[in-house]
Amino acid sequence: MNTFGKIFRISIFGESHGNSVGVTLDGVPAGLSLVFKDFFNDLNRRRSGAKGTTPRKEADLPKLMSGVFNDHTTGAPLTILFENTNIRSKDYSKLRETPRPGHADFVAAKKYSGFEDYRGGGHFSGRLTLGLVAAGVIAKKLIGAIQIKARLIEAGGTSEIEAAIDKVIEEQDSIGGIVECRINGLPVGLGEPFFDSVESAISHMAFSIPAIKGVEFGSGFNAAKMKGSEHNDNIISMDGKTETNNAGGINGGITNGNELVFRIAVKPTSSTSKKQRTMNIKTGKLDNLEVQGRHDACIALRVPVVLEAVTAIVLADFMMQEHKIPGIIINKMEKK
Amino acid sequence: MNTFGKIFRISIFGESHGNSVGVTLDGVPAGLSLVFKDFFNDLNRRRSGAKGTTPRKEADLPKLMSGVFNDHTTGAPLTILFENTNIRSKDYSKLRETPRPGHADFVAAKKYSGFEDYRGGGHFSGRLTLGLVAAGVIAKKLIGAIQIKARLIEAGGTSEIEAAIDKVIEEQDSIGGIVECRINGLPVGLGEPFFDSVESAISHMAFSIPAIKGVEFGSGFNAAKMKGSEHNDNIISMDGKTETNNAGGINGGITNGNELVFRIAVKPTSSTSKKQRTMNIKTGKLDNLEVQGRHDACIALRVPVVLEAVTAIVLADFMMQEHKIPGIIINKMEKK
Amino acid sequence: MNTFGKIFRISIFGESHGNSVGVTLDGVPAGLSLVFKDFFNDLNRRRSGAKGTTPRKEADLPKLMSGVFNDHTTGAPLTILFENTNIRSKDYSKLRETPRPGHADFVAAKKYSGFEDYRGGGHFSGRLTLGLVAAGVIAKKLIGAIQIKARLIEAGGTSEIEAAIDKVIEEQDSIGGIVECRINGLPVGLGEPFFDSVESAISHMAFSIPAIKGVEFGSGFNAAKMKGSEHNDNIISMDGKTETNNAGGINGGITNGNELVFRIAVKPTSSTSKKQRTMNIKTGKLDNLEVQGRHDACIALRVPVVLEAVTAIVLADFMMQEHKIPGIIINKMEKK
Amino acid sequence: MNTFGKIFRISIFGESHGNSVGVTLDGVPAGLSLVFKDFFNDLNRRRSGAKGTTPRKEADLPKLMSGVFNDHTTGAPLTILFENTNIRSKDYSKLRETPRPGHADFVAAKKYSGFEDYRGGGHFSGRLTLGLVAAGVIAKKLIGAIQIKARLIEAGGTSEIEAAIDKVIEEQDSIGGIVECRINGLPVGLGEPFFDSVESAISHMAFSIPAIKGVEFGSGFNAAKMKGSEHNDNIISMDGKTETNNAGGINGGITNGNELVFRIAVKPTSSTSKKQRTMNIKTGKLDNLEVQGRHDACIALRVPVVLEAVTAIVLADFMMQEHKIPGIIINKMEKK
Repeated sequence: MNTFGKIFRISIFGESHGNSVGVTLDGVPAGLSLVFKDFFNDLNRRRSGAKGTTPRKEADLPKLMSGVFNDHTTGAPLTILFENTNIRSKDYSKLRETPRPGHADFVAAKKYSGFEDYRGGGHFSGRLTLGLVAAGVIAKKLIGAIQIKARLIEAGGTSEIEAAIDKVIEEQDSIGGIVECRINGLPVGLGEPFFDSVESAISHMAFSIPAIKGVEFGSGFNAAKMKGSEHNDNIISMDGKTETNNAGGINGGITNGNELVFRIAVKPTSSTSKKQRTMNIKTGKLDNLEVQGRHDACIALRVPVVLEAVTAIVLADFMMQEHKIPGIIINKMEKK
Repeated sequence: MNTFGKIFRISIFGESHGNSVGVTLDGVPAGLSLVFKDFFNDLNRRRSGAKGTTPRKEADLPKLMSGVFNDHTTGAPLTILFENTNIRSKDYSKLRETPRPGHADFVAAKKYSGFEDYRGGGHFSGRLTLGLVAAGVIAKKLIGAIQIKARLIEAGGTSEIEAAIDKVIEEQDSIGGIVECRINGLPVGLGEPFFDSVESAISHMAFSIPAIKGVEFGSGFNAAKMKGSEHNDNIISMDGKTETNNAGGINGGITNGNELVFRIAVKPTSSTSKKQRTMNIKTGKLDNLEVQGRHDACIALRVPVVLEAVTAIVLADFMMQEHKIPGIIINKMEKK
Repeated sequence: MNTFGKIFRISIFGESHGNSVGVTLDGVPAGLSLVFKDFFNDLNRRRSGAKGTTPRKEADLPKLMSGVFNDHTTGAPLTILFENTNIRSKDYSKLRETPRPGHADFVAAKKYSGFEDYRGGGHFSGRLTLGLVAAGVIAKKLIGAIQIKARLIEAGGTSEIEAAIDKVIEEQDSIGGIVECRINGLPVGLGEPFFDSVESAISHMAFSIPAIKGVEFGSGFNAAKMKGSEHNDNIISMDGKTETNNAGGINGGITNGNELVFRIAVKPTSSTSKKQRTMNIKTGKLDNLEVQGRHDACIALRVPVVLEAVTAIVLADFMMQEHKIPGIIINKMEKK
Repeated sequence: MNTFGKIFRISIFGESHGNSVGVTLDGVPAGLSLVFKDFFNDLNRRRSGAKGTTPRKEADLPKLMSGVFNDHTTGAPLTILFENTNIRSKDYSKLRETPRPGHADFVAAKKYSGFEDYRGGGHFSGRLTLGLVAAGVIAKKLIGAIQIKARLIEAGGTSEIEAAIDKVIEEQDSIGGIVECRINGLPVGLGEPFFDSVESAISHMAFSIPAIKGVEFGSGFNAAKMKGSEHNDNIISMDGKTETNNAGGINGGITNGNELVFRIAVKPTSSTSKKQRTMNIKTGKLDNLEVQGRHDACIALRVPVVLEAVTAIVLADFMMQEHKIPGIIINKMEKK
């Protein structure tokens, strides 16, 4: 199902080279102010253009198709559409025969028996994250004072990120990276013991971002090497603040009021200019594959804003489950 | 919500020191043979008693309350109950005042305003995994030839697991570990692009197991250090077999027919005999806390069977979504 | 799926002659006082024993298996179990061959390929409504001041109900009836335009009660005969009170603050002492069937309490969706 | 939630006078042929223009925004958009003050605190049924040989429908009606005992159609007047055919292989040219209201195609739950 959420719910649709990509949000409270320019900052962060990312191609203007009236949400489903304007009518048939290693080409062809829209990755394309980022903008507005900051803390195994990218561009290869997300201002008590722990929900959504290979919270994989006496975070205040934060802000699946910290591992872009071997599913013989065009040398550069978005979506849903976002948001401005 | 799954659905209930823990399975096909002893092996693996685990306390006999008739599933909801027989009527009130670091005591008291069943962790207790393991037994039967094997591959930072445990028992401390799960025999095509990728669903459930701090698939966090030219898995056969398996058996969120491989990080048990500091929420002053009783020196030892169970539950649901498990399973034996 | 609800969710399980029937409630706020005797009144109303109903057979004592501690709900899933104690080990094999007209015998055997628990209707039995009534008790407590009253307003086509029942008992036959439900004290604004209108949700649950053949709101089927100028309810107060109530308290699927009124049609009990014809599925020939035992002469007599229960369940869910029931209910009594 | 369905799922969005109305279908199998003209017949039936309906206003051209490629479904979410082209920029502010009796104006203003899009009924408008009809077209293709036929069998209390409409047009009033739906070719076994009986699901969706006041299956409300000995349908063949069909094709919530028959009551259009009284929510005084423009004299005329659509949607979901529609539909034409 292409839907996530219990009360604040998002549904995604579209293909890379079809008519459009988009998202529908259901359960958005009425009365949230929402205008065109609210989307600019995050859509711009996603769009790339910086060194190490592909040159920007699409204007990515969000069209609000429903659910907004007089610059405020109405409480009805809110659909945001991004039309695909920059589609080259090139020949994809050769590419079809040789599924790209590391991409979904092969599995999509099998799963949908050859009926999938294979152009540019179709529904599996990273372009679908446009809808996630747009939904994230609304989620961020809903959760108000909660601050979500994600950033690339390591690329190609080093924290000297710019140097690593320069090098890999020169090599015409690609590198992976680690993105860390820190959330402050959370109340105690978000999340459910079974099966909707904060970790469950965040990892569920984080793995919806293409190219993610791992997720860890707080001490993460390092916890496996630690002793209980070192790992426990002593509680030192009445509101639950702890001396250390190995828990990453979560106990028993529930936020504990400390900073929520997690990291995700991003693999290197699968599309590189290097020659690769793959099965030609028409001839049944191994073939060489050279993926044309320019690619992201470090796709991880574009991940932080998407990770913030999915985190905001998860938290907005939890906040609404806990009745911490009212069903109607009356803004300071005079009401219509 | 204490429910997981789309077609094959499980719901969990119960408390550590209440009347019972249990699980209800909805969507189990009719006609699956199911008898009492089917549960023994996995329940026994979970029960502990080995070195490094707590001494066994409960008989853990599953009572099939509904959904089974003449030793076969009926297609109706299947409820399995485990009565709590070994409950000591000790005084928990002191413990209440001093929430244990690393446990859910503090967050539960806040989230439920002091109405939570705080005895032995209540609904947050590891005892709830009984229901998961029992559900896993049924899920494993449903997915038939698919083989799921989880094992502890590292404890306290070393693969010399027995030695590490001996040492930490001596130190009266606890250690974490890494559990790896490998699944063979999967068809190509399980999972959905958004938002129900195989990674999303497995991580969602894996983080429902207490003490898990991270999940990684295939190359995992190591992918962040790799180059695209190294990371891609060349496809070398018509059925999608790849030369390497950095993808861990998944592309674009969908199984690709190779071995599915993932690992989870387990933190050291929070309960140790070492003295800890915590806030006394009655006095508002810092207090020392000594958790009585015997504890798991390495809780990770007990995780593999639970991880197999949740993995089987996820895969059974995916298999049913793909119509790969029929709605009715007619066994070889003569029908009733 | 044997589950209903979005936030306040109930799941039902069990069979007429199996170990038990029961219900699990998920999403019950913490802190609601709940004791054994809260269930007595409504369980008693359901149990029958009055003229026109079967003689009572079961004690129907609810066992609270989880989710309650110190006489208050904990916020964790709440499972209520009714053990089946009064099961006669009679021979059902003859009955199996001749599926009873008007019952689910035939469809159940087909749907579950003969694996269904066919004893006494199995999972299709009216005994399953025990769980509904128990869940309704909790729902009624949650929605507080909202008053739900259902009563039999017509039996066998007449409002002289007692006389009609006397007559049909004499004839050894059975009769249907109409049950009307009136709800007062509702806020404006419950329900959703698509697809969770108040009518959609109530009818969804009402048709879960065995023997229901129709549902109508306000003017109901009579509306089909009316003119627009007669049917409209003029709004005569600022809080939305209307002169007439053809709408039955709902506009556009949303409660409008007036009395919510609806009626359901209950068919006559299918089990009568009269001889019936049915296919013998073993011999492939038509057979005569005489259903033994005592039956409800007017099953509609037992429906009101069940209808109130499912209505309360629906309304509790809507109230929670609208944030009108807090996540924690602190009772007047001193907190634990 | 604006979503319905378990496997075959539809989500609806849009407003009467906003940018668009539309629908997203999730879970559509890949490989179903789908072209523009497939929608013409049913959209045309819905559009009105016949005597007794409003003059047609919109072209209602469906735009397939995603999920279709090379004239076949891809298995990805399928979004259909209808742009609103014929929106008059008239002044709605007067209308706002005087909520129309029988409409959702009052409840919408309360529920969404004045932020709702009130133009032309907004999200509550009958225009939203465009998405239902379009989704129904796809559902009908999926369920193949199953025949669904709905027709108006009574208007204004008489079966002389044309005459009744002529008369009410002359009177400048409106009338209600009864629509009957008959479905043939159903397999035995669709539907679930609790809580997703066929009646529950169909009534859930039927009440999503504006103006519906009641639903009855088979003998319906007449059952309340019958005796058990008359009501039972004797089974007369091995495949479950019955002599009579008081059950309406359903036992215990499950299809029994006979014709499925149900009826819905449609109220007269609320908008009439007759003067009405309503509360002026600005002045707090009663006001006269004259709704301008041309209206449906008998909205029930336009209901059959919508009722067929929602029925097809329900049945497609049940068929997929029973594995009776494969995940991939390979058409006779050569595969791409």
